[in-house]
Amino acid sequence: MQLASELAQKGRGHTWTNPIVGAVIVKGDKILACGYHHQFGKAHAEIDALAQLADIKLARGATMYVTLEPCSHYGKTPPCAVKLTKVGIARVVIGQLDPNPLVAGKGCQILRHAGIQVTVLQQTEQLNPSYNFFYRHHRPLVTLKYAMSLDGKINAKTGIRSKLTGKAAYQDSQQLRTQQQAILIGEQTLKVDNPQLTVRTIATAYPPLRIVLVNDADQLDLRQQIFQTNEAILLLSRRRSFRQWPQQVEIQSGYDWSTKQVMQLLYQRGVQSLLIEGGSRVQATFLAAGLVDRIIVYIAPVIYGGGGLPAVYGEKALSLANYQLVKQQQLGNDYRFELRRN
Amino acid sequence: MQLASELAQKGRGHTWTNPIVGAVIVKGDKILACGYHHQFGKAHAEIDALAQLADIKLARGATMYVTLEPCSHYGKTPPCAVKLTKVGIARVVIGQLDPNPLVAGKGCQILRHAGIQVTVLQQTEQLNPSYNFFYRHHRPLVTLKYAMSLDGKINAKTGIRSKLTGKAAYQDSQQLRTQQQAILIGEQTLKVDNPQLTVRTIATAYPPLRIVLVNDADQLDLRQQIFQTNEAILLLSRRRSFRQWPQQVEIQSGYDWSTKQVMQLLYQRGVQSLLIEGGSRVQATFLAAGLVDRIIVYIAPVIYGGGGLPAVYGEKALSLANYQLVKQQQLGNDYRFELRRN
Repeated sequence: MQLASELAQKGRGHTWTNPIVGAVIVKGDKILACGYHHQFGKAHAEIDALAQLADIKLARGATMYVTLEPCSHYGKTPPCAVKLTKVGIARVVIGQLDPNPLVAGKGCQILRHAGIQVTVLQQTEQLNPSYNFFYRHHRPLVTLKYAMSLDGKINAKTGIRSKLTGKAAYQDSQQLRTQQQAILIGEQTLKVDNPQLTVRTIATAYPPLRIVLVNDADQLDLRQQIFQTNEAILLLSRRRSFRQWPQQVEIQSGYDWSTKQVMQLLYQRGVQSLLIEGGSRVQATFLAAGLVDRIIVYIAPVIYGGGGLPAVYGEKALSLANYQLVKQQQLGNDYRFELRRN
Repeated sequence: MQLASELAQKGRGHTWTNPIVGAVIVKGDKILACGYHHQFGKAHAEIDALAQLADIKLARGATMYVTLEPCSHYGKTPPCAVKLTKVGIARVVIGQLDPNPLVAGKGCQILRHAGIQVTVLQQTEQLNPSYNFFYRHHRPLVTLKYAMSLDGKINAKTGIRSKLTGKAAYQDSQQLRTQQQAILIGEQTLKVDNPQLTVRTIATAYPPLRIVLVNDADQLDLRQQIFQTNEAILLLSRRRSFRQWPQQVEIQSGYDWSTKQVMQLLYQRGVQSLLIEGGSRVQATFLAAGLVDRIIVYIAPVIYGGGGLPAVYGEKALSLANYQLVKQQQLGNDYRFELRRN
């Protein structure tokens, strides 16, 4: 299972909304074939492993170790569970059951029904945290990310953009974006920072959906950088929009866009992971709503003084012991702290 | 001079407003005696070293290495420079000239006048940063110290005290207090935190003067903890005070107490080092006035959300590159950052 997990990791960043999965076919103490899910839309790990066999007949009587329950539904590929029964696999050891209701237990059922011995380990949960979270909690796994000064400010002065952190922290936050299916910011951040919200330094086939919460989308300046790039944009506007939008822009207007409404929409869309990148009020609102699962803070060793905007601002306090530090590291001159909800 | 510097360090924390000083007497390649300034009011390093000689006649023709220019004035002890001429020291190597105008160059003058060869190195400045700063800038060296959460807050909710950091950070901040001649807080911090502002875990003969900036001292509650301890208190009140104060309290009332006025008073009092320990507005005010020379930040890995008070709040922004990080360390679960003004 250790080897299957390592194989699964090879697909990281390429499987989009699919989980990463690895599979190993063993007979006696001999490894016959290794496979993994290479890319969204391509063969599942089980099928990939079978394809590596010198002869498909070798599968007969063999054991397959697979990090996730084999699928039972016709998606982009036929169900793996059925395929395993057909090639004569004798035993399947499963890393974790699939939380996706289309599969959940049904894969095991197909296998057992065909007389295959099935063992479920619940060992490989950590391979797909967002995927698992999404199906269990019916909303994306939310990560909050911000950079602040050593006196807790995101900028030197409210309403201006301050460049806080260095190259290593920038690279790290680009990496973080590649692991997310969507990025969300507030209107103030759009206006002040004028960000692109794209992944620029790392090649990725699945750039995150860029979401902006605004009061009145029709008041936005289309010359802003976000509109100059082709990656998809979802505008959530409180006021109704009557404007013609560029092709990459989807508008949802005329709703309050409470945190709850945002989460519902993203769940419907199948967005499993969301990165919130500002500003202070949006961050405080999601924190206060109990919707932040992970927090990444970059601290730059500078002092801005009393004039800037605090990193988190404007909503009521949280109960204290909600988060625990899981990682701390130095990135150039900056410091990165990662917290998870308890 | 390296040895003399190490000797000087032995006096750290015991010399109050006096500098720490070390001295070594050498003849040929042989060390004849070592001395240092043990304690405020006791013998200076030069005299201490001479007293360690087996015979005072050995001083004749010897070289003395001393970390600070020998004094020229009658203070608590007779001038060291004169003593050196009397015992026949042939050469004096001085680590740094004394910035105290009572001495400044006059010590060297006495020595040279008596035919002693004098070498000045400017190597030992770092032994007495506050002492040097005080005489050069005519105000105390100011250190700002605060603890904040990973979202830049000093408390979970404005107006309540939150315990942020752990044992190691507490011990470190107690150590910091022992190195200061005065501690200053604002009225809000006095009321909300109800601190003692004493050094509790480390024995010190010279507890820092406790200064509180208040609007109307006569409105203070004498049951607050600060008034229950005997260490000296200086109240700086904007409104005039007509109250009878406990013995350890000195009141200065009827002034604005701008940062400039506070600095002037402390200079007159000979306070060489000041620690500012809150709150947000006092900190922002001193920062904005350009009166903070060193900043120590403890960061606790917790998230408070939008409701709390930012660590620094309420005054205009600073120019960016004013401070640089000189030290970073982990203290238990907390992180300590130390910055100095460039």
